[in-house]
Amino acid sequence: MARKLLLISNSTNAGEEYLAWPRGYIQDFLNSFSVKSILFIPWAGVNLVSESVEKSFDIYEERVKKIFTELGFRLNSIHREPDRLKAVNEAESVVVGGGNTFHLVAMMHQYGVMDAIHDKILGGSPFIGWSAGANVACPTMKTTNDMPICEPSSFQCLGLVPFQINPHYLDAGPAGHAGETREQRIQEFLTVNRGTTVAGLREGCLFHVDNDSLKLRGKRSLRIFQFGLGPREYTCDENLDFLLKVTAG
Amino acid sequence: MARKLLLISNSTNAGEEYLAWPRGYIQDFLNSFSVKSILFIPWAGVNLVSESVEKSFDIYEERVKKIFTELGFRLNSIHREPDRLKAVNEAESVVVGGGNTFHLVAMMHQYGVMDAIHDKILGGSPFIGWSAGANVACPTMKTTNDMPICEPSSFQCLGLVPFQINPHYLDAGPAGHAGETREQRIQEFLTVNRGTTVAGLREGCLFHVDNDSLKLRGKRSLRIFQFGLGPREYTCDENLDFLLKVTAG
Repeated sequence: MARKLLLISNSTNAGEEYLAWPRGYIQDFLNSFSVKSILFIPWAGVNLVSESVEKSFDIYEERVKKIFTELGFRLNSIHREPDRLKAVNEAESVVVGGGNTFHLVAMMHQYGVMDAIHDKILGGSPFIGWSAGANVACPTMKTTNDMPICEPSSFQCLGLVPFQINPHYLDAGPAGHAGETREQRIQEFLTVNRGTTVAGLREGCLFHVDNDSLKLRGKRSLRIFQFGLGPREYTCDENLDFLLKVTAG
Repeated sequence: MARKLLLISNSTNAGEEYLAWPRGYIQDFLNSFSVKSILFIPWAGVNLVSESVEKSFDIYEERVKKIFTELGFRLNSIHREPDRLKAVNEAESVVVGGGNTFHLVAMMHQYGVMDAIHDKILGGSPFIGWSAGANVACPTMKTTNDMPICEPSSFQCLGLVPFQINPHYLDAGPAGHAGETREQRIQEFLTVNRGTTVAGLREGCLFHVDNDSLKLRGKRSLRIFQFGLGPREYTCDENLDFLLKVTAG
């Protein structure tokens, strides 16, 4: 299957500059396909400024454009395009930024671009997503950590990979807090989605997918959850191509 | 408006026995209305045992029944009732347990009991909910912390109060983690739901609602969020009746 994906757990590690850690990976990835221009999807970024959601997208575009310009790429945001479907169909590559996954998915459905982006990427155009943007590459948004601040018409997502990513995966909850840990939440997910595989992608890590090959990159291991099996850890050295062969549940 | 509600942030504080801290409040609340029997809603409890979701409800019922029996109340779970609507209509009081809010709301809609519970409680029957069970007392489930493990037909909830509760409210995220803090998530919510008030209810705290009076109980303060205003803290001594007068946004 043709697919060129960079699925990034988080834009920014605590205490670092915006998009600092994945910058080199992004540059190498896009350069390997001689990409020059990028269509940016800002719809997860609802409150970079409180004035209005539309203004927040402007600020988000500026912030991301600054970095991609430094890296040598042209970037335009879909929220400025009068014909969004046309913008997708003509895009050289698609980059989906993080923020609130519910808002992102709601707008992707509302503007009818979910299928168009799916077709574009499975046609071979490179795709980058971080945080919420990595979540929407999955079959559904059911493993997001975000608050359901709005109600999407459907939880269905791009399905560029057949498993679910849990971005920002973390092991422990805050000390003295009795709310569910991330692992408990994922176990709840598995109980009602028994055929689905979940990849807990820790901060500072990403997946590089090249057709039927998947590689983990970053400094931490990956935690894989499947119903009825104990969680398993994988490092960057191990073959993870099986993740692209699991059924979508 | 007739309503008798006990809306509890969390069943259990870290390191304590199940339902230990709110036990006295539950007993006093139900005794004040001479309640003898309880209809329990277990649908948030999806994975108390991995065997099956139905079996998980059995275990959940047992766990909660043990405590309510000790307190002197009869408890039956709705998942054993052949006619769920009839069970709601004939209930003396309704208790909704915590767990996954998406699963709870999905089943409440699937079995068509949302409106029936709403009418029952606004007719004067006492209602207790903890965690997910406190969330469903709100206009929608949009301020839950839970993972969207399944897709409810609607996010609409009971609307027994006109504001949104964020249960298990906590101030800081885990150290070194770059994911959104709870406050950031609530600010995202407010950006797209500007007319709605959110109450961050910390663990070990509850709301006691008696018609148009609302009291905070517990050892921590309450954090109130409204769009365009800074967050405000309220203690148990302060009058919080205004929360019952805010518009539902």
